[in-house]
Amino acid sequence: MPHPLEPFFTPRGIAVVGVSEKPEKLGGIIWENLARAGYRGVLHAVNPRYPSFRGAPCYPSLREVPDPVDLAVLAVPAPSVPGVLQDQGARGIRHAVIISGGFAEAGPEGAALQRAAEAVAREHGIRVVGPNCLGIYAPGNGIDTLFLPRERLERPGPGGLAILSQSGAFLSTLLDLLAQEGMGVSKAVNYGNRIDVGESPLLEYLAEDPETRVVAIYMESVDDGRRFVAAAARCTRVKPVLVVKVGKTEAAGRAARSHTAALAGRHAIYRAAFRKAGVVEVDSFEALLDGAKAFLLQHPPRGKRILIITNGGGMGVAAVDRVAQVGLEVPDLPEALAVRWRSRFPPFYTIGNPLDLTGNSTDEDFATAIEEGLADPAYDAALVIALTPVLGLSDRLAERISQAARAAGKPIVCCSVGGRRTPHLVRRLHAEGIPVFPSPERAAEALAALVKRKP
Amino acid sequence: MPHPLEPFFTPRGIAVVGVSEKPEKLGGIIWENLARAGYRGVLHAVNPRYPSFRGAPCYPSLREVPDPVDLAVLAVPAPSVPGVLQDQGARGIRHAVIISGGFAEAGPEGAALQRAAEAVAREHGIRVVGPNCLGIYAPGNGIDTLFLPRERLERPGPGGLAILSQSGAFLSTLLDLLAQEGMGVSKAVNYGNRIDVGESPLLEYLAEDPETRVVAIYMESVDDGRRFVAAAARCTRVKPVLVVKVGKTEAAGRAARSHTAALAGRHAIYRAAFRKAGVVEVDSFEALLDGAKAFLLQHPPRGKRILIITNGGGMGVAAVDRVAQVGLEVPDLPEALAVRWRSRFPPFYTIGNPLDLTGNSTDEDFATAIEEGLADPAYDAALVIALTPVLGLSDRLAERISQAARAAGKPIVCCSVGGRRTPHLVRRLHAEGIPVFPSPERAAEALAALVKRKP
Repeated sequence: MPHPLEPFFTPRGIAVVGVSEKPEKLGGIIWENLARAGYRGVLHAVNPRYPSFRGAPCYPSLREVPDPVDLAVLAVPAPSVPGVLQDQGARGIRHAVIISGGFAEAGPEGAALQRAAEAVAREHGIRVVGPNCLGIYAPGNGIDTLFLPRERLERPGPGGLAILSQSGAFLSTLLDLLAQEGMGVSKAVNYGNRIDVGESPLLEYLAEDPETRVVAIYMESVDDGRRFVAAAARCTRVKPVLVVKVGKTEAAGRAARSHTAALAGRHAIYRAAFRKAGVVEVDSFEALLDGAKAFLLQHPPRGKRILIITNGGGMGVAAVDRVAQVGLEVPDLPEALAVRWRSRFPPFYTIGNPLDLTGNSTDEDFATAIEEGLADPAYDAALVIALTPVLGLSDRLAERISQAARAAGKPIVCCSVGGRRTPHLVRRLHAEGIPVFPSPERAAEALAALVKRKP
Repeated sequence: MPHPLEPFFTPRGIAVVGVSEKPEKLGGIIWENLARAGYRGVLHAVNPRYPSFRGAPCYPSLREVPDPVDLAVLAVPAPSVPGVLQDQGARGIRHAVIISGGFAEAGPEGAALQRAAEAVAREHGIRVVGPNCLGIYAPGNGIDTLFLPRERLERPGPGGLAILSQSGAFLSTLLDLLAQEGMGVSKAVNYGNRIDVGESPLLEYLAEDPETRVVAIYMESVDDGRRFVAAAARCTRVKPVLVVKVGKTEAAGRAARSHTAALAGRHAIYRAAFRKAGVVEVDSFEALLDGAKAFLLQHPPRGKRILIITNGGGMGVAAVDRVAQVGLEVPDLPEALAVRWRSRFPPFYTIGNPLDLTGNSTDEDFATAIEEGLADPAYDAALVIALTPVLGLSDRLAERISQAARAAGKPIVCCSVGGRRTPHLVRRLHAEGIPVFPSPERAAEALAALVKRKP
């Protein structure tokens, strides 16, 4: 039997309710995005005002939409939503994404509408994502209910990262950055006011989803604490789960309440639950992006002893500071390795941990240091800082770093930062499966996130 | 009488010792960079092997270089440095930038060479920047001793930021990013092993420098604790000074020692000294860049009550969390303002602090919120989050934000993050004098840095 949430991600047909020819109306944008996402099922248009829509028949209501149709996407004003759900129930469509805002987040009247919608959905056994949300993005299946045009928001391609987000802005920004960095997404869901489907059932689904290798969650509040811990624990047994929990402070708790009408709760309780379930908690938007990249591209190290390799001494010192601050270790070079490197490298390289290859560094220096350093049982992983302005680095650096890391069989993370030549190196390293971060501190924190998960 | 360090920044003539036709040799790169930096004084080449160098006469030693010459830039092997300093002393040139590495950072032999160089410099009263450094970048004066070619490392134009850095990699990376963000630099100095001129005398100089409006320091260790506190206190009376101190942990302390042969010392002592001198301490490479941008473009607010304006609810909640965590306040909207905005804005905007203008936000919404919100005595500054994928924002947003901020006369910082359309908005906002940060957390921290300095 398929998972009860499966039709959200692999519907045989989708009805978009509220399609419109006006370019600023969400229904038309969503229709366009679904068409452009390569959805292979049947798209149905619903709007009583049009006989047809962009070459397809347009139905006055969901009651008239022919088979197949497993999912309705609602982009109609909030007051119309309960009626549309009635039609949907009568038609036997059991899954809805309610994009529309104007519910509990908009005051008492909206809250009453939300209760009405909830009652209709429950009565008909309709599973709901939303309301007040962007809905679902699943590029491998051609699903894209995001109402932001592709010209405005870049979409990542298919890949191993699943994202669950109470915030639409958080999700869309993350997607935009992932696209830019060449990372891929399996399923991304923004459930906004979350009257039904939230992180817990979605985690149960993602635990079994073969496309998903890593899960990242933006959370203001949890849908169901007990169920979440059980679902997250099940998920973390097979794949890493990262979370950023906002609404930690009292002021932010109030803000979260007005944003998605949810109670943020005491942070200590959340923290304990995350720990119990094996969820890796991070502290910011950037840390969630960084952690997701690290887990997508690298496996967790067997221990916390880090070798730092740099071609900028000061960046190396900054890395040591943050590595030590996040609870990892920077053991001295074993004497045999130090002796070998002293004879192998020029005398002005600083042989130690960090190993400073200086502005004279070459591609081969980095490869040697990574391969020989990580071959030593003294180290579990490497943090490699490669600054591009030095003359000895070529276009082959990314490939050499990645070959050396593969030969050593231990995880590495990179830091590269700068204007002109860095983006090129970052793209190449990502293509080689090496995650790159724009400061030594963020590279150290990504490594700490990896270490938090047992290999 | 000019300041004793003045000839480093406004020399009437510069001699580059160790010019070379080999493209990988530092002397030639430095010559080229000085020529391209628009230096208006006389450039002299020194190398006994060449009769002339790129059309200019080339002298066998500093003893033969004719007037005017106030500064020697040494790019010769370390063992030759004491002899070159002898020549320089005999010729009466009282300022040297020693680029060459291979001194105390390279082991006991190098340490002996460094002591020899120090002795010669002291004997002849030569002021020294270096050795083992990039030296000086002062674009307004056409000074550029950085040995990284412009094709590899972008240079920022003239502007208000001075940078003092023990690390060359830290400085060069910062310059590269500042260039990319359109920020300008007055003087940047990397002094490496620092046998003479360090942060204290440079701060004394920068305190009086009319071009410098903000000072940013990367520090592994201090040259002279007592003198530093006095110089920094004098400087912070007239302009903000930011510092990132690395080598905080014991492991990093050891790393700093091998990097620039300096003792990093106990961090609590540094922290107390910074506080005493009014120096704003930040915790990472990115925070130094962010803080510098904030101070260059905005003045400190009169208090710590922050209005948060967003078009992405979740980003707003994340901002509230970090604003509260860094010790600022997020006071509720005064009732009169709430009433006004409820009637002015659509019902689905969330009227509160944060004010959530949602995906329906327009340029005018942002302008109204900033101008009317900051006009209220309840707020000292605003944190504005503008995500670009929404349809209602146009190319005029940056201008409208900046007009509104000017009308209110209170500082604002922005957050914008995303792939396709964001870099354009960031450049426009920077051009309008509004600093932009790539996450709500970093915007909050930049605001906290601003607040730390009394207006």
